[in-house]
Amino acid sequence: MSLVRVQNFSISLDGFGTGEGQSPDAHFGHAGQRLHEWMFATRWWQQGGGGGVDDAFARQHGDAVIGVEIMGAGKFGHPGWHEDPDWKGAWGPNPPFHSPVFVLTHHTRPSIEMEGGTTYHFVDTSPAEALEAARNAADGKDVRIGGGPTVIRDFLAAGLVDHAHIVVVPILLGRGVRLWDGLEGIEQKYRVETTASPSGVTHLTFTRAGV
Amino acid sequence: MSLVRVQNFSISLDGFGTGEGQSPDAHFGHAGQRLHEWMFATRWWQQGGGGGVDDAFARQHGDAVIGVEIMGAGKFGHPGWHEDPDWKGAWGPNPPFHSPVFVLTHHTRPSIEMEGGTTYHFVDTSPAEALEAARNAADGKDVRIGGGPTVIRDFLAAGLVDHAHIVVVPILLGRGVRLWDGLEGIEQKYRVETTASPSGVTHLTFTRAGV
Repeated sequence: MSLVRVQNFSISLDGFGTGEGQSPDAHFGHAGQRLHEWMFATRWWQQGGGGGVDDAFARQHGDAVIGVEIMGAGKFGHPGWHEDPDWKGAWGPNPPFHSPVFVLTHHTRPSIEMEGGTTYHFVDTSPAEALEAARNAADGKDVRIGGGPTVIRDFLAAGLVDHAHIVVVPILLGRGVRLWDGLEGIEQKYRVETTASPSGVTHLTFTRAGV
Repeated sequence: MSLVRVQNFSISLDGFGTGEGQSPDAHFGHAGQRLHEWMFATRWWQQGGGGGVDDAFARQHGDAVIGVEIMGAGKFGHPGWHEDPDWKGAWGPNPPFHSPVFVLTHHTRPSIEMEGGTTYHFVDTSPAEALEAARNAADGKDVRIGGGPTVIRDFLAAGLVDHAHIVVVPILLGRGVRLWDGLEGIEQKYRVETTASPSGVTHLTFTRAGV
C-alpha cells in the first residue's frame, strides 16, 4: 500500500515550522538552522554524528520507499522566486530528493530536470489533485509531503496524511508560520507516540488507524 | 534559596493552556479535562494510579517547599466571578493549595480564609510586586506561579521564573489561550530538558542557570 508521509518536519515549541523574513540567504527566516541542528548532528547527515534515535528517524528520509515529494512554493524558494526565470530551487544542482518533486504554486513553469534523479514539476491544484498526480508518478512507492508548514497543514486538514513524523525543537521562535493552526481534534484520527531524544528534541509520530 | 516555580502546567500540542468558552461548569472551556487526564491517572491523584514519571512530576505539587501560590483571575473563577460577592473560588471549601494564595485581579475584595490552610488574598499589581508580597508571605519557601497561561506567560516574560515544569499533551485544541505568545528566545535563559512519558505526554523542564 502506498502511503502519504511527513518525515522529519521540525517545528519550534511554539509551533513555527519556519521563521519570519525568508530570503535567498535565509531559507527559514530568523529561525536560521536552529530547527534542524538535531538532524545535522546525526550520522545520517555527517560522519562522526550520533547514531541514536534522532539518526533512526532522520535516515527514513532516504528511505527507498519514497517515490515522489510534494512541496510548497515556499520550500522551493524564497518569496519572489517566480520572478527569476532561471531559479532552479533552493536545493542546489543535485537536490536531496532523487525523485519527481511536485511544487504547488500559482506560478507554474515547465518541468526542470536536475542531477541525481530529481525532476521538478509545477502544479497549481488542490492538495487532493496534486496527490493524485504524485501517486501516478510514484509507481507504487510512498509520497512525501515535504513542507513547508502551510502545505503540511493543508494536507492534514484534508485528511490525506497516513503517517506524520514531527520533531519539536525546544526553542521559542515567537514568529513565523505555524504548523498546527486550524487542526483542532486531528489527533483523534491517529495513534500518537512521543519519544524524547537526549538531544532535547521530541519526536512525535501520528499513525492513521489501519496503516 | 526561595525559588519561583511553575508546576504541572499542561498545554496542548498547539500551545493552549486553556480552551475557549470558560464557564462555571467548564473551568478549562472546551478543553474539558483533556489537559489533565495524565495527572488523574497517577498514584498521586488516586489509589491504583500509575507510579511512573507522570506521578514523579505530579507529586511535586504537594511538595512541602511551596509556601505561596500566585494565580490569575481566570484560575480563581469563570469570567464574571467578581460580580458574585459570595464566590470563593473554583476549588471547593478545602482547596488543594494549603497555603496563602495571591489572586491577581482588577476586582479586589477582602481576603478569604478557607479550610485546610488556604487563604485567598486579592491584589491588583504587577507580577514583580505580587511576587514581592508572595515572597514575604512564603516564609523562605518557594512560590508557585499557578496559572493560567496568561499569568505564567507574564511572569516568564518578566524574567521572574526560576524553574518551570510544562506538560505537553498530544492533542490539538485549536483555540483558547496560548502559553508561549511573546516569549521568543526565552529558552536561552534556561537549561531545557525533555522527558516523554509512556502516557503520551512530554514533560519539559526549564531550569535557570545557577538554580
